[in-house]
Amino acid sequence: MASIIGPHIHKRALLKHTVALNAMNDGDGPNSYFQNSSYQGGAVDVTKPIIEEEIATKLDDVVQHLASTFYIADFGCSTGRNSFPAIQFITQAIKQKLKTSSPKIPEFQVLFNDVVTNDFNTLFASLPRDRLYRAAAVPGDFHGRLLPESSLHFGYSSWSLQWLTEVPKAVADRDSPAWNRGRVYCTRERKDVCDAYLNQFGDEVESFLEARAVEMVSGGLMAIVVPGEPEFWNPETEFTIPSEINLFGSCLMDMAKKGRFSESKVDSFNFPFYLPTSQQLKVILERSQSFSIERMEVLNNPGKYTLPSVDARAVVYRAVLGRLLTDHFGSEIMDELFELYTKKIAASPIFQNPDNDKTTTILVVLKPKTD
Amino acid sequence: MASIIGPHIHKRALLKHTVALNAMNDGDGPNSYFQNSSYQGGAVDVTKPIIEEEIATKLDDVVQHLASTFYIADFGCSTGRNSFPAIQFITQAIKQKLKTSSPKIPEFQVLFNDVVTNDFNTLFASLPRDRLYRAAAVPGDFHGRLLPESSLHFGYSSWSLQWLTEVPKAVADRDSPAWNRGRVYCTRERKDVCDAYLNQFGDEVESFLEARAVEMVSGGLMAIVVPGEPEFWNPETEFTIPSEINLFGSCLMDMAKKGRFSESKVDSFNFPFYLPTSQQLKVILERSQSFSIERMEVLNNPGKYTLPSVDARAVVYRAVLGRLLTDHFGSEIMDELFELYTKKIAASPIFQNPDNDKTTTILVVLKPKTD
Repeated sequence: MASIIGPHIHKRALLKHTVALNAMNDGDGPNSYFQNSSYQGGAVDVTKPIIEEEIATKLDDVVQHLASTFYIADFGCSTGRNSFPAIQFITQAIKQKLKTSSPKIPEFQVLFNDVVTNDFNTLFASLPRDRLYRAAAVPGDFHGRLLPESSLHFGYSSWSLQWLTEVPKAVADRDSPAWNRGRVYCTRERKDVCDAYLNQFGDEVESFLEARAVEMVSGGLMAIVVPGEPEFWNPETEFTIPSEINLFGSCLMDMAKKGRFSESKVDSFNFPFYLPTSQQLKVILERSQSFSIERMEVLNNPGKYTLPSVDARAVVYRAVLGRLLTDHFGSEIMDELFELYTKKIAASPIFQNPDNDKTTTILVVLKPKTD
Repeated sequence: MASIIGPHIHKRALLKHTVALNAMNDGDGPNSYFQNSSYQGGAVDVTKPIIEEEIATKLDDVVQHLASTFYIADFGCSTGRNSFPAIQFITQAIKQKLKTSSPKIPEFQVLFNDVVTNDFNTLFASLPRDRLYRAAAVPGDFHGRLLPESSLHFGYSSWSLQWLTEVPKAVADRDSPAWNRGRVYCTRERKDVCDAYLNQFGDEVESFLEARAVEMVSGGLMAIVVPGEPEFWNPETEFTIPSEINLFGSCLMDMAKKGRFSESKVDSFNFPFYLPTSQQLKVILERSQSFSIERMEVLNNPGKYTLPSVDARAVVYRAVLGRLLTDHFGSEIMDELFELYTKKIAASPIFQNPDNDKTTTILVVLKPKTD
């Protein structure tokens, strides 16, 4: 008898994604992702009115596929801090919508998904008392199948699809022209490195969509929220998340030069995520055989104003990137790295003002194509 | 808008059951339930052939209610150690059965349920690689609704229904005739105490069945496995789990007499579980409006042979009862209590031989009644 692992789960992703998404720190302590995800949480506020409007105008079709339960899934829920408010407004908007069109309001079942090593205990312990739904957890890599065929009515994924299951091979390979020597992410100067990241990102979004296409009912809706970079912005006066990430690269090289570790230790490290431009994401989504774009919006992220100080930014990056850095460089270098990083940010007038943060929030509402 | 908590969850149970079932120790360390549940695991072996036979002969009806996914739930899965082998053989037996009667073998979705404070992280981390199903977790008290209406095809619950959501009120009330002074569980001498326990157990089994009746599809099956006591056995030469539990009571009274804590501290402590006789369980189940008994068997439990030494028994009891005892008496008394307990067991020739353990495994296969 065939094991469920074989046919249904994208094997490469299974092995590697665990490392990547596991980057969030566990629990709800001071260094946890749970306590340090206000930046990402800004995306909830800014996407809310648009997602509500889409539900109100595009959800009609799904009602015919409803039994007595409406299924919502959040792909990449982490420990729930930003997932809970999003899922609550989504459930409320769907209830509101169904009131006008459906003879009976169904029960709501929400499936919280993240990698198997995610801290679901913290998520369960912090489930809101006033939630409008029953909660369940589905562990596993969302680049493969997770849910029953034709069972999902509404899909949601916020600030998760940017994570890659692995660093693009060409970037990590010292024999490749796209070898990313002395850097930890792509930079404007290295188009070959950026292309390798973009290809990897495109392939993984495609895997995600293929799995969801089997799981969603026809007429269902899916909202994905991805952090992105604008096409054009001025590095002399503005910054984005990738600017800050590349600042880590320069700190790590400084430390290598001081002899804390070898330069090749930095050469062999690259962050496994990619922030696309909206145009890049659009091209990837338009290639999909399974979903059509119902709406696409490039939004600001008010979450940036929740990080007014240099120290606050450092704490958030430590919660999000801490485990990846520790796994590669060891925990003993972390304090020095983050001190150096804080010093560099504090020395730059650009990073002092959150208005200069040009990172975008890309919201896309998708609908399964009918054959 | 009504909250999901209000109408769907048995409120009393929600508050209290958390305390009771949470008694299992977390994680997979040396004192964890995960590492110390071989006794309960014996029930898997002994019930396997019977459950397989019932699936082979009674499952026909359910196929007509199948979409493309077959749903199995385990109510009270703990961290999975005993749940995984049981769910695997159940899935295999159902696949085998469906091969003979169904045009298409469905996918299998298993819902692992336990209280919200259960250590689901350990369960997810130890999911078997060769499993025949997709896994999800549903946190919550199984005395209330947990799953969508008419969504469950096969239910399973092993060594969980004996846990009570609270100690029977009369037993804990010093003004009641059934006040259980100086004891921690019911004994043969106190019929009033036993009746209070039995009533509480009956009410809670009924709540469990009522919730499942809404969730199960007609034609589905449910197997429940409960540890029990024989109607008659000889306390001079034989013992059961309740004998050992009452030995804890006498140890606690000895410690109170030595001044470690007050006697009233013992008076106010009672264990929140009940081991019925098969006759008692039968009467409770026969009262159900929702389920009919397809089969009922009283079995031995080979798990007892996995605890050959007095020390091994003490380790298991510490894993299962540790948290309840610590919450009431404090962790500082635990080493002394378990030393005293081990001494008492070692001094009795009865407990030396696992053959004298007359605790039974009661297996009942139930089917939802059709209106």
